[in-house]
Amino acid sequence: MAAIYRVGPDGPVYRRGVPWRRRLRLPASIAHPVRLLPLAFLSLIVLGTLMLLMPFAREGERDPSFMDAFFTATSAVTVTGLATVDTGSYWSPIGHAIILVLVEIGGIGIIAMTTVLGLFVGGRLGLRTRLAAQTDMHVVSLGDVGPLFKRVAFTMLVFQGVTAVVLTLRYSTHYFDSFAYSLWHGVFDAVMAFNNAGFSLHADSLTGYAGDYAVILPISVAVFAGGVGFPVLAELYQEWRSPRTWTIHTRLTVWGSLFLLVVASTLFVAVEWNNPATIGGLSPIDKLVTGVEGGIMPRSGGFNSFDWGQVEPVTLFTAVIMMFIGGGSASTAGGIKVTTFLLLGYVILAELRGEEQVRIGSRAINSRTIRTALSIALIAVGLVTAGAMLLMMFSAVTFADGLFESASAFGTVGLSTGLTPDLNLPGRLVLIVLMFIGRVGTITAASAFVLRRRQSRYHLPEEQPIIG
Amino acid sequence: MAAIYRVGPDGPVYRRGVPWRRRLRLPASIAHPVRLLPLAFLSLIVLGTLMLLMPFAREGERDPSFMDAFFTATSAVTVTGLATVDTGSYWSPIGHAIILVLVEIGGIGIIAMTTVLGLFVGGRLGLRTRLAAQTDMHVVSLGDVGPLFKRVAFTMLVFQGVTAVVLTLRYSTHYFDSFAYSLWHGVFDAVMAFNNAGFSLHADSLTGYAGDYAVILPISVAVFAGGVGFPVLAELYQEWRSPRTWTIHTRLTVWGSLFLLVVASTLFVAVEWNNPATIGGLSPIDKLVTGVEGGIMPRSGGFNSFDWGQVEPVTLFTAVIMMFIGGGSASTAGGIKVTTFLLLGYVILAELRGEEQVRIGSRAINSRTIRTALSIALIAVGLVTAGAMLLMMFSAVTFADGLFESASAFGTVGLSTGLTPDLNLPGRLVLIVLMFIGRVGTITAASAFVLRRRQSRYHLPEEQPIIG
Ligand SMILES: [K+]
Ligand SMILES: [K+]
Repeated sequence: MAAIYRVGPDGPVYRRGVPWRRRLRLPASIAHPVRLLPLAFLSLIVLGTLMLLMPFAREGERDPSFMDAFFTATSAVTVTGLATVDTGSYWSPIGHAIILVLVEIGGIGIIAMTTVLGLFVGGRLGLRTRLAAQTDMHVVSLGDVGPLFKRVAFTMLVFQGVTAVVLTLRYSTHYFDSFAYSLWHGVFDAVMAFNNAGFSLHADSLTGYAGDYAVILPISVAVFAGGVGFPVLAELYQEWRSPRTWTIHTRLTVWGSLFLLVVASTLFVAVEWNNPATIGGLSPIDKLVTGVEGGIMPRSGGFNSFDWGQVEPVTLFTAVIMMFIGGGSASTAGGIKVTTFLLLGYVILAELRGEEQVRIGSRAINSRTIRTALSIALIAVGLVTAGAMLLMMFSAVTFADGLFESASAFGTVGLSTGLTPDLNLPGRLVLIVLMFIGRVGTITAASAFVLRRRQSRYHLPEEQPIIG
Repeated sequence: MAAIYRVGPDGPVYRRGVPWRRRLRLPASIAHPVRLLPLAFLSLIVLGTLMLLMPFAREGERDPSFMDAFFTATSAVTVTGLATVDTGSYWSPIGHAIILVLVEIGGIGIIAMTTVLGLFVGGRLGLRTRLAAQTDMHVVSLGDVGPLFKRVAFTMLVFQGVTAVVLTLRYSTHYFDSFAYSLWHGVFDAVMAFNNAGFSLHADSLTGYAGDYAVILPISVAVFAGGVGFPVLAELYQEWRSPRTWTIHTRLTVWGSLFLLVVASTLFVAVEWNNPATIGGLSPIDKLVTGVEGGIMPRSGGFNSFDWGQVEPVTLFTAVIMMFIGGGSASTAGGIKVTTFLLLGYVILAELRGEEQVRIGSRAINSRTIRTALSIALIAVGLVTAGAMLLMMFSAVTFADGLFESASAFGTVGLSTGLTPDLNLPGRLVLIVLMFIGRVGTITAASAFVLRRRQSRYHLPEEQPIIG
């Protein structure tokens, strides 16, 4: 396949100047990768719903519930982890396997698709030369997409494999008698962790392992790694020794993620230290372990070893903010993404300094990129707000619970103060829509915004309204 | 004094090219109007605190409380209306008069200063030719500042006078036997209404007049008029018949304010219709009257004829958003301002359409103005969030109450779910800082941002991080 040499108004254009959609000979309306993404996810959700409706997917002699199957399939494919039923006892082992596969396909699909879109979209991503070393230095070809998918899948399986081994060893030596049972739990938790999916075979998630560093920390590390995103992992793999050569994207993601982790965990431990309903009864070391978890999971792992319905208001608010920010781009985490969040911080900095260009290190960020970041953040605020208000209106939840649940669904986090199973039909539909838009919509919007940029043929005269 | 012909990097520059601060021969550090503003407000607050500490300002034989005097003075000068004590019973009639004067000076000061700053700052404000008709068509001179102050004061007194007459008639015929008492209440409420200050001589604000259209509506209209801002009032006065000639600023403010009013009032009436703790027990007409009030007051009048501590979560959330948005620029209302809010909406629209320029009608908004609007909105989000978290941490308030109180203080609204009098010292300090920054800081920041814009001598190479 031919190499792309620039991104035109109709999407990436080949070296020979032919828009790629014409080359692939697919109908234009579905051929664009940005348009394919929602369709692919929707198909997977429908397929998942159908499979979860099968009798063998449920435990015992229950009647099938379309809504529970639909909700669970959406939650799994979008790697969220919110659940209207108890995952462990409602679904059969086959049902668990279906959820596992949906999560794995959803996770790999997201990472691969967003990485490819990043290659198409990001003119100065820096990755293209590194990931696609076999091609020219300044082009990426569609022929690289296959190997790229393989590389993404390989990376994910390695991470998940290591996590699974560590967890299985701990489970079999300290928790369960059966090695097979330990192995199944280890594999399930590892897949959920790296995919930031947060489903658990236990009704109370990780509460049975509260404070056990040999369970909480491997899961937290896998969540963190899955959440920084493939482009960053790939760059770190090759250049972890020379941070000075990292792209802006990797620098923002790595330092930003660590910064958010430290802030959220410190706040968590400080505020919850004496809360008997969360970590008040644990030993100091166990409090710290739980603090790391409490700082990482809202961005958007979704596991919990304590009851989020019992945390202090400050902790809940911090978590809402972290869920909104989310993880790295082209990762299994949701939210507006760390880069988007930090970019907005740099905009404020430039404004405070009165500088014409927004600078990050020795690089400038152009005003269209800023506008895109701003738009994504504002649309996200609007969606979380609208979701929370609809939940309050139709499902009679409190202010705090509504905002937390809405942010959790939009950020595909999966944490809950405990109200998900009690939500009525409108409430469940709100969450389904939020999960889908939160997962697919933000990616699609971000890519579409960048791809659709075009030069105006004429410029309008400017006028300046008063601000502030 | 010479006419300003452009805004340079060091502030407005005279026709003869001399920066104005050098002409006035004040020390550069305090001469800049942007720097004078916080100092002027701080002085007024200190003066007000001292006066409210005098024995004759309090009712009965109470001990002086520095914190209550300081809080009340700050609340009055920033035209907020939050109160740690019951205004009616704690302060003597002289104390009420002091509060009235502080509010009036604070209100006139804000409107006059921001209008002047708007003239200095807004290169394309459009107002200069209309307000300062005696000068050349394209310049505004410092000699216009005196007449401008007079015009602002005159406009405010006319509005307040009419409101006072209407209220006094109603109070004397329907509520109080004494005409003098009715007059004092009418004048007090009129001053508070147009200044968006929200102090009331009754412990329960307007609750005694709930549903009485002859009291609620005049106060609401005065609050609305005070909240659209002087530049808009001035333009409407001259050109209300030809909306097509309005400046972008006036169009955004007028249509935006009406839009927010309709949305907020409709939501309020729909959600609260059957809530017995608010408007459930009123007649349908009284519900609508209260709905108008419930839509207007959070943006930032601060009066209430029902208990905001009893509203539904959705209503509370809507109010928080309205408090955050606030009123028009160069008005007595607070918040990020209607123009800032709408501008961000137009940015999303431009992004969705893939347009290079952000358009409003036939005018473009330049990217620096957008960056300024974005920065102000983000800083405001940060402040309200930080304030809410500090209240939750130090004063043990709930999530909803903390966010409501923080937004109310930052937006200089003055509504409360009822917790202000119970706050401890750190909580009160948080509100004092929020009121001051919300009032003075946003104006200062907005003007400083615009004035400090400068061209870079060199441009950095661009790099594009992945977003979303
Ligand atoms: K998740
Ligand atoms: K107010």
